[in-house]
Amino acid sequence: MIEKLDGPAFLKKLTVKQLNQLSGEIRGFLIDNVSKTGGHLSSNLGVVELTIAMHVVFDSPKDKLIFDVGHQSYVHKILTGRADRFDTMRQWEGLCGFQKMSESEHDVWEAGHAGTSLSAALAYATARDLGKQEHQVVTLIGDGSMTNGMVYEALNQIGDEKRNMVIILNDNAMSISRNVGALTKSLARLRTSAPYNTLKHDVKGILKTNTIGSTLLGGMERVKDSLKRSMLDSSIFGELGIEYLGPVDGHDIKALIRILKVAKTHEGPVLVHVMTQKGKGYPHSENDTNGTWHGVSQFDPDTGADIGQLPAGHFSWSQVISETLIRLSKKDDKIIAITPAMMQGSKLEKYFALFPLRSIDTGIAEEHAATFAAGLALAGYRPFLSIYSTFLQRSYDQINHDIARMDLPVVIGVDRAGLVGEDGPTHHGVFDIGILRPIPNLILAQPKDAQEAQHMLYTAFNQKHPFALRYPRGNALFREVEPFQPIEIGTWTVNKPLHEADLVVITYGPDVEKVETKAKVNQINLSVVNARFIKPLDEGMLQEIAQLNKPVLVYETDMLAGGLASAILEYACDAQLHLDLHRIGIKDEFVSHGSVPQLRKETKIDITSLFATIVAILSTHAS
Amino acid sequence: MIEKLDGPAFLKKLTVKQLNQLSGEIRGFLIDNVSKTGGHLSSNLGVVELTIAMHVVFDSPKDKLIFDVGHQSYVHKILTGRADRFDTMRQWEGLCGFQKMSESEHDVWEAGHAGTSLSAALAYATARDLGKQEHQVVTLIGDGSMTNGMVYEALNQIGDEKRNMVIILNDNAMSISRNVGALTKSLARLRTSAPYNTLKHDVKGILKTNTIGSTLLGGMERVKDSLKRSMLDSSIFGELGIEYLGPVDGHDIKALIRILKVAKTHEGPVLVHVMTQKGKGYPHSENDTNGTWHGVSQFDPDTGADIGQLPAGHFSWSQVISETLIRLSKKDDKIIAITPAMMQGSKLEKYFALFPLRSIDTGIAEEHAATFAAGLALAGYRPFLSIYSTFLQRSYDQINHDIARMDLPVVIGVDRAGLVGEDGPTHHGVFDIGILRPIPNLILAQPKDAQEAQHMLYTAFNQKHPFALRYPRGNALFREVEPFQPIEIGTWTVNKPLHEADLVVITYGPDVEKVETKAKVNQINLSVVNARFIKPLDEGMLQEIAQLNKPVLVYETDMLAGGLASAILEYACDAQLHLDLHRIGIKDEFVSHGSVPQLRKETKIDITSLFATIVAILSTHAS
Repeated sequence: MIEKLDGPAFLKKLTVKQLNQLSGEIRGFLIDNVSKTGGHLSSNLGVVELTIAMHVVFDSPKDKLIFDVGHQSYVHKILTGRADRFDTMRQWEGLCGFQKMSESEHDVWEAGHAGTSLSAALAYATARDLGKQEHQVVTLIGDGSMTNGMVYEALNQIGDEKRNMVIILNDNAMSISRNVGALTKSLARLRTSAPYNTLKHDVKGILKTNTIGSTLLGGMERVKDSLKRSMLDSSIFGELGIEYLGPVDGHDIKALIRILKVAKTHEGPVLVHVMTQKGKGYPHSENDTNGTWHGVSQFDPDTGADIGQLPAGHFSWSQVISETLIRLSKKDDKIIAITPAMMQGSKLEKYFALFPLRSIDTGIAEEHAATFAAGLALAGYRPFLSIYSTFLQRSYDQINHDIARMDLPVVIGVDRAGLVGEDGPTHHGVFDIGILRPIPNLILAQPKDAQEAQHMLYTAFNQKHPFALRYPRGNALFREVEPFQPIEIGTWTVNKPLHEADLVVITYGPDVEKVETKAKVNQINLSVVNARFIKPLDEGMLQEIAQLNKPVLVYETDMLAGGLASAILEYACDAQLHLDLHRIGIKDEFVSHGSVPQLRKETKIDITSLFATIVAILSTHAS
Repeated sequence: MIEKLDGPAFLKKLTVKQLNQLSGEIRGFLIDNVSKTGGHLSSNLGVVELTIAMHVVFDSPKDKLIFDVGHQSYVHKILTGRADRFDTMRQWEGLCGFQKMSESEHDVWEAGHAGTSLSAALAYATARDLGKQEHQVVTLIGDGSMTNGMVYEALNQIGDEKRNMVIILNDNAMSISRNVGALTKSLARLRTSAPYNTLKHDVKGILKTNTIGSTLLGGMERVKDSLKRSMLDSSIFGELGIEYLGPVDGHDIKALIRILKVAKTHEGPVLVHVMTQKGKGYPHSENDTNGTWHGVSQFDPDTGADIGQLPAGHFSWSQVISETLIRLSKKDDKIIAITPAMMQGSKLEKYFALFPLRSIDTGIAEEHAATFAAGLALAGYRPFLSIYSTFLQRSYDQINHDIARMDLPVVIGVDRAGLVGEDGPTHHGVFDIGILRPIPNLILAQPKDAQEAQHMLYTAFNQKHPFALRYPRGNALFREVEPFQPIEIGTWTVNKPLHEADLVVITYGPDVEKVETKAKVNQINLSVVNARFIKPLDEGMLQEIAQLNKPVLVYETDMLAGGLASAILEYACDAQLHLDLHRIGIKDEFVSHGSVPQLRKETKIDITSLFATIVAILSTHAS
């Protein structure tokens, strides 16, 4: 039944009872499918009724429906004829986990990062008005996204220009994990003010339905008496010139339809405050306050048990870093951890529990988080800014202008560096090397394994410059090192003497070991250089390599442009070294979604492709 | 007298009358000095009394005074003993035009980009509280900066954590030029609500002075009645949990001292709303609504006449682009211009007047501006995002994740690319090549002269990918081209056949002609390649150059890391071309302030250094 839905038109013929029944079926479908494919569960379970009501009231694709981030668009995908492909969700050439224009005419925007939907919606509204078209523009945005600065920048223009648009605030009182910040408290006040706001809405609604009332309302609104004004518009949105409607129960389809109909014909921008329960309808996710059920891997739908288990002795890379940070923080009371809403993703829960005064979740506020870290460093502290590589893109200027220009000792933990897999092109952490490398004063490193990671983090806190330490998604075999040992900045290591090898591979991260292993298995005589510092380079070793006059292959799993090979080529140029250099890495294209192994294969950066290239180079040299 | 000030302590002994007299003297000093050195005038004239009052009430450097952006810190510099160096303002090794920690212990933060001060202040307040210290943290921030998203991100944490800090909102109703956005309207409402707010402050003040009152107030604040709450905190700041004080006349020293004293001892974060007149005390700048007197070159203090005149037939590069954009927009009604608060700086006033519906000033909101442009492109329009290179850093993620990932035809006008001179390290536009080049789908170009710029802009609007067109600060000889001619993407030109030259110089922008001229004068046999596309490269020409086996010198005036030479080296590596490549450009360091010629000389990227290198290379090859 669900699989046969081919568009939202049928919804308009259903009764509320039937729509409620459909909601239940969609929930079952979501739990069933996400348990098999993994994906975003809680956020989608929370917006089942809301998405249905949106499609009942608005006419997609004529009306533009935009989902902020887009991870909560699964129900939208189901209602717009994509349920039959849910078994391919987030897999190579399968459905994308976010809105995707190539999938459907009902997707008119794509994202993955938070807070872009209001700018997009305002653009659609502007284009509509310039083209004298008639349709609505609707965004669905979570309260978590509302902590992001670009939302505020957009609201400032939206409230000024007063174009027709409907902003649906999906308030589940959660970001990915628990929500933070003053806005949360402001929303909480609005949540508890139901009778008053309903009254306000009804008063305005009644007044607007007839001419006399309309005139009266106009008169009231013209009166610049702060008391009357604040009675009608007392919210942060009202202050920014955006009409506020709500709050409304996000699981009451009838109430949702009623309020969205009011919003649809409202003149000017209106925000509809919808209260939802994240994870609604699935006991495991309903009771989750940490975000465990926000994005999930495969699980047993009956028990909620995670099917994927880490191999014995393995920790996620995030955990390797956070456990080490805890050890270091116990000895150094100046260390402070900062995360922009990724406490759970970056495995910082334990850190937050142990050091409540020295751990700060800024909300989805990467810009502020980075500059705040700069300030803490100036004030004598040793901030650790934990940030996903893809979200670090949001704080590029702050890392450059604030942290690095003042040469401040901020340690940046670049989590999820490299291809991340199923989340796809909006989330791959493949650009950070290219953007960080040209920044003066900054050190950029990636350890090859969990043991080196510990020494590296220790090293980062025992020097005085900005230090970006990148580590991938995935796991590593973890053994606690004792004692910590400093690593000399800008030094590489090599697994066997360079002069003994037929070819030198220079790489970084967990691929160092993979290449070493594969070379042994295939009996190819390689030296594998662990380029654990991407900046500065080990110039001495490069000099040595150049003298050997052997082929060199730089193996990168990030964007080639501006990457490690680029850095080596630049150094060789300046030092007038001759290197017979080859390189493998991600070419000039955005990489799609799918499992990491599949993506590495498709982009020809997997170990097999690497060794095919090695063999080809060696055969050329032999001939 | 002014020159002999050696610290703010003396201020505390002066009467209000004497402080007012000092204000007048400081204004005269500012006008006199800025007329000789150039610099930020209006914003400093506007905060004379306010800065004095800050130093009377607070105890710098124990109390931390932070100026947002920092361009309005001249009075602070005078009061903290730097008046005697004002004749060196913005010159090489002279005073910096922004706060600079190396100049004085009274400068505890550095910036240049808007909106960082609140994050920094919160960091200082956090460090103070963790270290159980006692002092205040004070920021002075303009209403223009308040339109920036990172301010909101910081306010969200500030209002939540309730640490003691004083945010002084310098409301002159201007950004750099006229202010925009809903926040402006919200502030305008507050401006006109003086009696009410004073009452509120007095009520709270009285209540807080005794225990019973304090309990009563606590009770009142606990009452979740929206009416009472909104009476006390009806402002966007109140909504975010930040106490509001004001408004107060920013030129009334007595009133300023009184209100800042209240703020100083206030528990929790407080915002003091100060109304100032930008350019106060100098008739020319008082009447300026366009921002002409925001940042100025040398001028005649009596007449206000600009001393520097453009050579005949010359336009600023910004004007070259905006005039061309006007021509194109007359023929194509889909073109829309967007600027993040740089209408005046990027010479878009005429465009805004001609196309009021197709021109948008977003305020200092680079993130939103870029994503808004992406949305307009999706909706069928042809946005021109005009943005300074240094501020583009703020929208890196939006250019990558929104514009380029969706491969949208947004034309990005990268203004002030390259060294900008007197504004210094926070403003040099030298990083954009490094960060833009690794982004797939994006085309990056810089024309060599104003004529090529016109064809290039025409070309940008007649293709379907993101197109970043960079142009420097400074001027160019302008002659209107007719007709526009498309330039083939990825093609370079050369001034004489490559095989005839002894050495090939590859460069871009106005340096192409400078190198050609100098080569003729010095009778050095060069081919000069105009690498007008930095991405994609002219691979055919590079193949041809490689076959000639001649020395090649890439001459860049931006960061070397990740730049044009880096791109060429990468291509040569992949294509296994042999190039005898050398490069000149900005090494791995932040460049200070000073005139552009001086900075080019100091960083050894001036034409003289270039030719010294050319001669050295040629002599090596000859020997």
